[in-house]
Amino acid sequence: MVKRYLSLCSLDHALSVMKSSFSAPQRTEQVPIMESVGRVVATPVYAGYSVPEVPLSAMDGIAVRSRDTVGASETAPVTPGSFARVNTGNIVPPEFDAVIMIEDTWEAGDRFQIRKAAAPGQHVRPAGEDIREGRLVLPRGHLVRAFDIGAMATYGITRIEARAVRIGIIPTGSELVALGIRPGPGQVVESNTIMAQVFLGATGAKCTRFPIVCDDPGLIAEALRAAVKENDFVIISAGSSAGTRDFTAGVISSLGELLFHGVAVKPGKPVMLGKIQGKPVLGLPGYPLAAQTALREFAAPLLESWGFAPAPKYPVRVRLAQAVTSDLGFDEFVPVFVGRIGTSLWGTPFVRGPVVQTATVKANGYTHIPAAVEGYEAGTELEVLLTTDPGSIERTLILTGTLDPALEDLANLVHDKGLFIHASSMGNLAGLLALSRHTCHAAALSLPAGPLLREYTPLARHISVDDTIFVHIATIGHGIVSRDGLLPEDLTKVRFINTKSESPSRIVLDALLNARGIDATQVNGYSTEVSGPGAVAGAIRNGSADAGICTAGIAGSYGLQFVPFASEDYELAIRREMLADPRIMSLIALIRTPDYRAILETSGGYISDTTGMARYLSKDTVLTECPAGTMQF
Amino acid sequence: MVKRYLSLCSLDHALSVMKSSFSAPQRTEQVPIMESVGRVVATPVYAGYSVPEVPLSAMDGIAVRSRDTVGASETAPVTPGSFARVNTGNIVPPEFDAVIMIEDTWEAGDRFQIRKAAAPGQHVRPAGEDIREGRLVLPRGHLVRAFDIGAMATYGITRIEARAVRIGIIPTGSELVALGIRPGPGQVVESNTIMAQVFLGATGAKCTRFPIVCDDPGLIAEALRAAVKENDFVIISAGSSAGTRDFTAGVISSLGELLFHGVAVKPGKPVMLGKIQGKPVLGLPGYPLAAQTALREFAAPLLESWGFAPAPKYPVRVRLAQAVTSDLGFDEFVPVFVGRIGTSLWGTPFVRGPVVQTATVKANGYTHIPAAVEGYEAGTELEVLLTTDPGSIERTLILTGTLDPALEDLANLVHDKGLFIHASSMGNLAGLLALSRHTCHAAALSLPAGPLLREYTPLARHISVDDTIFVHIATIGHGIVSRDGLLPEDLTKVRFINTKSESPSRIVLDALLNARGIDATQVNGYSTEVSGPGAVAGAIRNGSADAGICTAGIAGSYGLQFVPFASEDYELAIRREMLADPRIMSLIALIRTPDYRAILETSGGYISDTTGMARYLSKDTVLTECPAGTMQF
Repeated sequence: MVKRYLSLCSLDHALSVMKSSFSAPQRTEQVPIMESVGRVVATPVYAGYSVPEVPLSAMDGIAVRSRDTVGASETAPVTPGSFARVNTGNIVPPEFDAVIMIEDTWEAGDRFQIRKAAAPGQHVRPAGEDIREGRLVLPRGHLVRAFDIGAMATYGITRIEARAVRIGIIPTGSELVALGIRPGPGQVVESNTIMAQVFLGATGAKCTRFPIVCDDPGLIAEALRAAVKENDFVIISAGSSAGTRDFTAGVISSLGELLFHGVAVKPGKPVMLGKIQGKPVLGLPGYPLAAQTALREFAAPLLESWGFAPAPKYPVRVRLAQAVTSDLGFDEFVPVFVGRIGTSLWGTPFVRGPVVQTATVKANGYTHIPAAVEGYEAGTELEVLLTTDPGSIERTLILTGTLDPALEDLANLVHDKGLFIHASSMGNLAGLLALSRHTCHAAALSLPAGPLLREYTPLARHISVDDTIFVHIATIGHGIVSRDGLLPEDLTKVRFINTKSESPSRIVLDALLNARGIDATQVNGYSTEVSGPGAVAGAIRNGSADAGICTAGIAGSYGLQFVPFASEDYELAIRREMLADPRIMSLIALIRTPDYRAILETSGGYISDTTGMARYLSKDTVLTECPAGTMQF
Repeated sequence: MVKRYLSLCSLDHALSVMKSSFSAPQRTEQVPIMESVGRVVATPVYAGYSVPEVPLSAMDGIAVRSRDTVGASETAPVTPGSFARVNTGNIVPPEFDAVIMIEDTWEAGDRFQIRKAAAPGQHVRPAGEDIREGRLVLPRGHLVRAFDIGAMATYGITRIEARAVRIGIIPTGSELVALGIRPGPGQVVESNTIMAQVFLGATGAKCTRFPIVCDDPGLIAEALRAAVKENDFVIISAGSSAGTRDFTAGVISSLGELLFHGVAVKPGKPVMLGKIQGKPVLGLPGYPLAAQTALREFAAPLLESWGFAPAPKYPVRVRLAQAVTSDLGFDEFVPVFVGRIGTSLWGTPFVRGPVVQTATVKANGYTHIPAAVEGYEAGTELEVLLTTDPGSIERTLILTGTLDPALEDLANLVHDKGLFIHASSMGNLAGLLALSRHTCHAAALSLPAGPLLREYTPLARHISVDDTIFVHIATIGHGIVSRDGLLPEDLTKVRFINTKSESPSRIVLDALLNARGIDATQVNGYSTEVSGPGAVAGAIRNGSADAGICTAGIAGSYGLQFVPFASEDYELAIRREMLADPRIMSLIALIRTPDYRAILETSGGYISDTTGMARYLSKDTVLTECPAGTMQF
């Protein structure tokens, strides 16, 4: 029998079942204060003594009896006979009730003259000023921060009783290998359980990761029994879908109760929750972003309902840089990159599916699209929860367009100027659209050099020619990539692999075929499209195809042969008004540095003759070089 | 010679000197990825292999040759002869180029029938879909987050080269004792260096705390030499003012160069920075909040300028619940508590001076008042940088008024409902003002019981009687506190200690004196005012005074004698409209629980007869009891 579908429940229902089915484990542990940041107070912390315990001087000066100073003035100075020299923090001897700052005294032999009467209590810190013995320092539930620890140390508190929880994490899957082992084809590192341990460990949970269990129901049951016995909460990774080797749900049912399996949430649909011996067992989906959803939207809220610190959530309002669609009836969580252009925060959604972990790495936030919403138009304002320091947003340049390794090298260099580059790889056209919509700081474009440019019509449609300047990053060699050094005339005889229409490689290919009078339908694989030159090279190295078009650098990094026949200009298109932005100035200056030039030379595949030259685009001369001296940055 | 003043430089100048005087140490270290959260990437991280390396199935189903499925339809199903059963993540064998979901197949013997043609590449994850070999995973300068670690593990990365820095921290001061030792009178725990270690350690800095050095220039110099030798950055705590035992500046000058000493910043004025053997030496002021300023505004920005992760700064716009003043010419940093009342965020500044660490513990943020600003009116909108999860703000009830330990017990209990109480101790009057200005959820009031109430005129002026309900928390016994059981008639014979006018104790005292026909000027110490009953009890236990007025509970907790002669009602005044708020409902319900009643009984000093009873205040009957049943929460 083929298991066809999971029956899905709503996210709200699943969370409500989860929170009502499990009460907090009453586990606590003693934690030395220096290790208590991020921990939650289980037993209220009270001051063991008053601070200060006795009156102290609040200033460097002299302690006096205020009544001895009555009448002191500029014209009638007083030199108290009884006084004590005190520094800040010294005890004010019981016979004195005021302190006069040293700056307000004049030395008079071994005494001090004063010219203004002291008020009773002046510059004296009364006993208990900071805190009084027995008063509450930290209530139950308080999340400890670094500066709280200073206060606790002052009040003589050396350790706190903190909430504690033990979490057992079981990786299952015959395709898994441990971290540190090179996965073979079809194998993957057990990264979801590693991520779970790090993510949940930040709450102070003591996470124990079990050895990898292969897809065997008996072995899974054995691991699950052990994990439930030793822990308050068990996470079992993968085996949660409805395939022939997905045993997790069955094993949970056999040992306890399956509360739900399948939630209308994306990514993360196959998430499941069971109850074994009264303890929660969360089944993580196998896809990394789905596992993240399960950890962030299920495991973390369960811990939060138990009184642990939630992962901090920093909401910001952003406008969507591009439309995003969502399946009606599904709560969707979409990684988003947030950046500031002028006064607006813009969010670029990453919609590359649940396996693309690079999306979370590149994103600095995520948005929740409720089940009742089918998506949002570009420009819609919505809430994004940040996953980074909001301050970093102000230091980030957003580049949209075609990604080339030359940009990665630039991203590494700009960090030394305190800046970040966020680059979205969406192609030239998307880059130009973003530029025209003011949703990026610059568009990274890969433009066929010289004679081909006029045929690259999408460009002309999307830029305001008078308002845009082009900064040349590098000239990139382009040609045929293959294992055996194939030539243009060989293309009709082998399995070709193509890139998407309007991509630079595709334009280069079409121009080549046109020049040689070759009919595209004669090329075997012309209609098989992959994204970008790296995918082409990868497919050829893997033997899925014999030839394609890519850049010299990429061909070299994949160890393939390369026959050049064209070149591209890799350029930044920048709105003229942006040139006033010091971050853009830094970026352009950096492109021109010998350091960056040297890095490009080393990388190979770049022709760096005119690199760093700024070019203007005008109506008449599509790409006119501008003498380097005329642009002042 | 008396050193009179530090010559102060501006904060901007000091920071600019600091950042331009020191270049980043080029120290890096290998960090296993599981320990890398919060660390900053020093060497860019590239993918060691493509993920996936070969085409994988994106679904559970069958892998087929797409050309074998051409023409399949409901009416003309096809049963491909060549296929492979694949689960999600399995390798798609090279001879196949598409996957059909198991849900779209029908079992036909040992084969599968399909009713729709498969497109080439359908449900196949191409090689390199997530990342391609050699591509950038994390650029230099990237701050590692938990989910980044999942991605790194997937890409086979086991450790990163992270930026590293060694910080030496020297506590100086003959008054210091180590954590764990009970300080004697005038002694303090070396809490500032502990705080420095925890705060700076969060950036990944390796902090070494040196043994306590007493106020001896030779010993300080010796410690400083050792610390500079072994570290990239040295922090020396205290000895930074201008008192007779402040040697730090002199020692720094003798070993190197003093770049500045004294900055127009509050708290933190005596902060200093030196340069010894090219390394920065930051002198922390001794007052805890001043030390915090030096750590947060000097040490952290220096580390940030060196490329370390800044302490996250989460800015919110808030309205000031009360005016705050600031010295012109000084950059001031004021702890603020931020809470939400209705749709507005309100910030209550804590202005209790640089020694009161409880202010930072209670605050959830701080604001920076620039040097050119003399302060802000109540109601001004300004920016506050949060020190907690913004989510916790939504779960916090703000109570303003008179603090009694009964409220601390309540604060501990509400945590179990997921709520926080933030209580500002500012007195009845401030509580009523906050209530009338909508800057608190409820005012905590200590009201002289029954007959005295009509004389408590400040109350009547500040509440809208029809819109306010009173929830009785407890009746608190009030009387004379002393070491020897003094009676009312003894008050003119001993040293009395008073509380501030309009405070409940003061009103009780004035009523008592009035009833006994005693002239207040006859009471020795009538004009010596301290804040609240705890300060009174503390002063009496310390021998600074002989008698005062306080509550039974506080007298007991200080081990003092108590002669009751009045009682107070401790009540929450709540705007009627707030009763719809589920958090307020939870709070009121909690006040009435047997658990809370039992806690009050155990604490002692409370008369809990009518506790939890809601009362209405109307124009005619100032405090009319309302039958418990008529209020529905």
